[in-house]
Amino acid sequence: MARIFNFNPGPATLPLPVLEQARDELIDYRDTGMSILEASHRGKAYREVHEEAIENIRHILDVPQNYAILLLQGGASLQFSMVPMNLLSEGDTADYADSGAWASKAIHDARCVGNVHIAADSQSDVPRRVPAFEDLDLTENAAYVHITSNETISGAQWKSFPQTQSPLVADMSSDILSRPLNISQFGLIYASTQKNLGPSGVVVVIIRRDLADRAPDGLPSMLSYKSHIETDSMLNTPPCFSIYLLMLVTQFFRKTGIEALYNTNIEKAKRIYDIVDESEFYRGTAASDCRSDMNVTFRLANEELEETFNKEAESRQLIGLKGHRSVGGLRASIYNAFPLEGIDALVAFMKDFEQRYG
Amino acid sequence: MARIFNFNPGPATLPLPVLEQARDELIDYRDTGMSILEASHRGKAYREVHEEAIENIRHILDVPQNYAILLLQGGASLQFSMVPMNLLSEGDTADYADSGAWASKAIHDARCVGNVHIAADSQSDVPRRVPAFEDLDLTENAAYVHITSNETISGAQWKSFPQTQSPLVADMSSDILSRPLNISQFGLIYASTQKNLGPSGVVVVIIRRDLADRAPDGLPSMLSYKSHIETDSMLNTPPCFSIYLLMLVTQFFRKTGIEALYNTNIEKAKRIYDIVDESEFYRGTAASDCRSDMNVTFRLANEELEETFNKEAESRQLIGLKGHRSVGGLRASIYNAFPLEGIDALVAFMKDFEQRYG
Repeated sequence: MARIFNFNPGPATLPLPVLEQARDELIDYRDTGMSILEASHRGKAYREVHEEAIENIRHILDVPQNYAILLLQGGASLQFSMVPMNLLSEGDTADYADSGAWASKAIHDARCVGNVHIAADSQSDVPRRVPAFEDLDLTENAAYVHITSNETISGAQWKSFPQTQSPLVADMSSDILSRPLNISQFGLIYASTQKNLGPSGVVVVIIRRDLADRAPDGLPSMLSYKSHIETDSMLNTPPCFSIYLLMLVTQFFRKTGIEALYNTNIEKAKRIYDIVDESEFYRGTAASDCRSDMNVTFRLANEELEETFNKEAESRQLIGLKGHRSVGGLRASIYNAFPLEGIDALVAFMKDFEQRYG
Repeated sequence: MARIFNFNPGPATLPLPVLEQARDELIDYRDTGMSILEASHRGKAYREVHEEAIENIRHILDVPQNYAILLLQGGASLQFSMVPMNLLSEGDTADYADSGAWASKAIHDARCVGNVHIAADSQSDVPRRVPAFEDLDLTENAAYVHITSNETISGAQWKSFPQTQSPLVADMSSDILSRPLNISQFGLIYASTQKNLGPSGVVVVIIRRDLADRAPDGLPSMLSYKSHIETDSMLNTPPCFSIYLLMLVTQFFRKTGIEALYNTNIEKAKRIYDIVDESEFYRGTAASDCRSDMNVTFRLANEELEETFNKEAESRQLIGLKGHRSVGGLRASIYNAFPLEGIDALVAFMKDFEQRYG
């Protein structure tokens, strides 16, 4: 079957050349006589994969050497508790910006571990937004300030990041590698891989090394950043194949470079937002100053038509446009690997649909 | 290149037909127009994979319905702390049998969480062994009794399991699916996938459902068995491709059946142990009553020849025979998917090597 346009929010479209390479070397990995799926994580073949994945991320995002890059398991969701377990000492307070569904989950788990202060809450704002810098009520000497750089469900994104006295911690699961970052502005960044970086199964953690020393004694090794730094993320058997794909995907995007990726992402999102703005038939759900370049959320003025929209889109091989079940509506998730032709196919369909139902 | 014989302790050999199927459907998964690597974890294609993986394990191991089967991340190593976090209440004690390197790691992390009593210690015994039932000094009303069913490094294996009053918890990472089990004898079994079940990236947890209720309030969701049971292991995005391979591997072994797998495993191990026993040139390192069928450990009487043995073996495409760096010697890891022809190739090489150097 021809390749469909996959607008799912993650796991998401991967670059076709990456999939082809993975297929071609799946049985016999580079003349080793075995699959990379079967290779020992202590052997040369896998070690090179592991190191290149880390090096690609360091290069693309220009990560300074005083930051470690870790490849862990458990997704961003396990980071929701690992961050406070490692960085939030008893008696201290961590500031959290509540910007929506994902920030709320991070807050829920942080409260299981220690004191949390809600520094701003844009959770219930409509149109959807992230907090403005001036709305952040930060604690003096907070252990850290936590934000969610892009809310996949609402489609609201931090377009720039606050300068904070306490280390800034960001869940960047849905927009890492989509734009240039000044890494030094952050204490810790975490991002699951299944949107911009590869398939599911890995979470990338970029941590300023000195912060890892905050971990309390007696933290189990798998939950300690320090242990993972000391073992180069090989404390136990890593999720080797997911990391292999992460290596291939970052190798692929390294050739493009972060500036070009960013410009393309803006252009891709703009083509959809333009038709949403030009028409009375569609309306965006996120505030225009914090619209996501990754998850374009919109509704039909006549919400009853949304199911029909989605069904007809599917019949044209435009898959995964249904909004998250908690909010409804429509959502086009267009991460790095989502092709421009897919954007144009969606825009053409939106125009056609409006003509027929508008 | 021709397929080599891969004796690595894990990640390990996978069935060739499974690899071929994964390759053939990697780009276009069953006419969906996308790779299973790209499929939404909430979509039909992946849901079927997820459910079949669980159903295959339930069928092969005859797991009763009052046990949940979970597919989690973090490997067995994260279970080292999750087990006590969920099952060991403050003030209670958990019994651990210390049988070697892996049991010790479980003990280390359990001590981070609560009270641990070492019920038996065969860690330093030579030849390597697991504790005898009569050596188990169990605590009355222990929260649970923890054992490591097979020690990958020493090659010692529990050949049967003790009847315990407290729930028996077993790390079966290196021998799950290698032999029939009476699941009802256990409270909880966990096993990482990269030996008998698939590639790395998943840990299978089989838990008697009532035990999950012991979890204390305020345990972060990702660390709570109860949360994972309630969401069918879909609390967050699962490691989809590793689970897809787990599904294919268990689908493959389901056709064989556990009794036939067991008999073949015994036969495979016996062919190597026989030559070790018959010769003065080789010697086994595990006590004969608890020799592993999965990891056959042995030494050369003249230990200085071991490096040569290993090098020559590699030149004959017998890869991964070097013992773990902490103990040295030689080790043939021969999980379910390791073929009989590879055993015979090793035995032939061992005979030839002895003739030339003995």
